[in-house]
Amino acid sequence: MNPLFAPVPLAKAYRLLNHGPTVLVSATHNGQRGIMAAAWNVAIDFDPPKVAVVLAKDSHTRQLVEASGQFVLNLPCVRQATAVMQVGSISGHDLSGDKFAHFGLTALPASAVDSPLLAGCVAWLECRLIPEPHNQQAYDLFLGEVVAAHADSRVFSDGRWHFEGHEDLRTLHYIAGGEFLVTGQAIHVTAPQT
Amino acid sequence: MNPLFAPVPLAKAYRLLNHGPTVLVSATHNGQRGIMAAAWNVAIDFDPPKVAVVLAKDSHTRQLVEASGQFVLNLPCVRQATAVMQVGSISGHDLSGDKFAHFGLTALPASAVDSPLLAGCVAWLECRLIPEPHNQQAYDLFLGEVVAAHADSRVFSDGRWHFEGHEDLRTLHYIAGGEFLVTGQAIHVTAPQT
Repeated sequence: MNPLFAPVPLAKAYRLLNHGPTVLVSATHNGQRGIMAAAWNVAIDFDPPKVAVVLAKDSHTRQLVEASGQFVLNLPCVRQATAVMQVGSISGHDLSGDKFAHFGLTALPASAVDSPLLAGCVAWLECRLIPEPHNQQAYDLFLGEVVAAHADSRVFSDGRWHFEGHEDLRTLHYIAGGEFLVTGQAIHVTAPQT
Repeated sequence: MNPLFAPVPLAKAYRLLNHGPTVLVSATHNGQRGIMAAAWNVAIDFDPPKVAVVLAKDSHTRQLVEASGQFVLNLPCVRQATAVMQVGSISGHDLSGDKFAHFGLTALPASAVDSPLLAGCVAWLECRLIPEPHNQQAYDLFLGEVVAAHADSRVFSDGRWHFEGHEDLRTLHYIAGGEFLVTGQAIHVTAPQT
């Protein structure tokens, strides 16, 4: 097992998204690859895990998701902040090649879907689209079932994040205008007596 | 203007949720009040701003949202972590009174909806339910349009968060088992040349 790419049990996959990180959505269809930034993502179920993500109508990656019925949510980290801005600042429609090639990003094969994984991320959720045409058209909202998940075991293992000592592997939370908030310290609260 | 409760322009309201904080959902109907924790929330549109939030079928607050067609997303901060665990660890169905009274929480009036605001939070999004029965039944997913928003101007103003120097006002990101990740430092990346 590659410790940078350890399996996450599906019942724990929601914990990868629970703290609200910005993700990169990747997909492929018919030889074309796409990847885009999406701060608007959320877990919506535990087991089987499901997610929701907003994909703007004009995005190339959205077309690949619709055509293939598959996508991956990649969780980028601090050292990839520039790459997040890059893939979020240009449309795949405006490139002759794809963003992986244009920006020198490394794609890795997923285990359960055809969508590419972005190397260097700290977690990945491989998803099958749950077709909901009304949500997709009215709200740009795409639902997916997570069919495989992986994480960099330096920062996520046994169902929990542990970023201490790995400052450059902390996840990112995009706000606007190039500004991110980085995932901070962990605190623990004992469930109180009611 | 109370600086702890400053208006946020609707077009900037998404920035309150963009970094993925855990929220407390509050609602009222027919003299009953409810409040529950929800890590699964997300912005889904800019202007008019819209949100989505997962409300479990057995929750009392969900019933109040369905009955009133209104809710508030309250953003709790570090000093309220115990309160988040409290309202997230018991159902309003199991109390003779409501959670505000039971846990000594202070409710404030909202400006555009009847749902109560929780005092001491750092931001509030007042929402009108967008009825989508299929999403509500199949996915426990509730959509809302934000009709008013407010924030504590010590940590949010001019459309951006600035938590520096206010450690106990940082927002919370729940993971599981009483563990939260606290919102961390801000970093800025200049949109790169493509």
